[in-house]
Amino acid sequence: MLSKQEIKFIKSLSQKKYREENSMFVAEGEKLVTEILSSHFEVVKTFYRDEIGEENMSRISLLSSPSPVLAVVKIPEYTEVPAPDNSKLALALDSVRDPGNLGTIVRIADWFGIDTIYASEDTVDLYNPKCVQATMGAISRVRVFYTELSEFLSIHHDKTDIYGTFLGAPSIYEAKLGKGGIIVMGNESDGISKSIGKLVTKKIMIPPYPADSARGESLNVAISTAVVCAEFRRPSGGPLQK
Amino acid sequence: MLSKQEIKFIKSLSQKKYREENSMFVAEGEKLVTEILSSHFEVVKTFYRDEIGEENMSRISLLSSPSPVLAVVKIPEYTEVPAPDNSKLALALDSVRDPGNLGTIVRIADWFGIDTIYASEDTVDLYNPKCVQATMGAISRVRVFYTELSEFLSIHHDKTDIYGTFLGAPSIYEAKLGKGGIIVMGNESDGISKSIGKLVTKKIMIPPYPADSARGESLNVAISTAVVCAEFRRPSGGPLQK
Repeated sequence: MLSKQEIKFIKSLSQKKYREENSMFVAEGEKLVTEILSSHFEVVKTFYRDEIGEENMSRISLLSSPSPVLAVVKIPEYTEVPAPDNSKLALALDSVRDPGNLGTIVRIADWFGIDTIYASEDTVDLYNPKCVQATMGAISRVRVFYTELSEFLSIHHDKTDIYGTFLGAPSIYEAKLGKGGIIVMGNESDGISKSIGKLVTKKIMIPPYPADSARGESLNVAISTAVVCAEFRRPSGGPLQK
Repeated sequence: MLSKQEIKFIKSLSQKKYREENSMFVAEGEKLVTEILSSHFEVVKTFYRDEIGEENMSRISLLSSPSPVLAVVKIPEYTEVPAPDNSKLALALDSVRDPGNLGTIVRIADWFGIDTIYASEDTVDLYNPKCVQATMGAISRVRVFYTELSEFLSIHHDKTDIYGTFLGAPSIYEAKLGKGGIIVMGNESDGISKSIGKLVTKKIMIPPYPADSARGESLNVAISTAVVCAEFRRPSGGPLQK
């Protein structure tokens, strides 16, 4: 059964304050919970609709339509932020604010074999329920490290290539992309901040089509992340096309 | 000023039924309304916060935080669905259900110079307010034609290349992509339907990294659209990389 106190506790985890206090978060849905159960995450408790009933499930669910299973999960504690490895790709997020965007970026990172994301301290919380759901399970394979990003990048930018997208920069189709480095993605409205922009050693751009056409609007941050990652993962010397 | 009737009318346009009855939709936000005003769309009336006051603005707004301007716009009527032009790229959407996804796909199409989208009749309505907002203005440059998609594609698949993403298909990095054709994107949960899958003449796939890694989850439909469009728009013979 389910006590009033339990219901109140689980509901409280929709707020960052209580997630931090208790070092726990909520994951819902069969696929997501299954992936979390088979990962390094420590699951505190799972609740199944078949056991607690539909009414109780909708009492604890943070979703508009409750799913058959909900898990309360320990937030993993990382003792240190790992130094970047220049033979591997990593992402860095400079103030990404929308939980759906962060979750989608985690999912993209997973697809393209990127297991490390560095996030500025003002990036939205990974354990926000909307973000957890949007990762579709990738949260169990990709690690997000919150850190003072400009300090972190300034320590490492001598040894690691730091990529970032800027209007007017060389096209990603023509730029020389390495096997590794850090790809910085910026805030939804303001892009990459000035202090972090200075640390970007390789500026690149996703060209519109035709390349010389004027575009008032740029692509959404998650969309840009996907296009840039796909280009990095493109094998060299693919067939000439068209 | 603003009459009670006007408020009721504008609010009613959040529902498809009333949009269809009146052949009008709502667009909000300075950027979006500016782009619509300078496009082929016929604007019925605009409302500015400075003129009608903040309280009235929040009465008519369909957004959680009202913007400085709202426009009521005529839904353009297309007398026929244009035949595909095999020298140009177009998209076809097979039952895309989420308005945010459709809006984002319209924005991606605009970025990559695609001005025509064919949509199955069960694809979410383009004039859904969430969709209009997600286009960020691209709705004024990209035309979406609702049609019986499998019939449409079966008429044209002899003369036009029809691409679609399928697990296990040749990688987009290795497939021969033409200058034109129709790229079919499928439903959020079920992908491309069987009847439309049969009409796809060129099956392709966005490979995960590493390419032989197992992935339970695929990419979101808008993300996939962006990666595929970027690869189509990649100039041939870019520099060898890595």
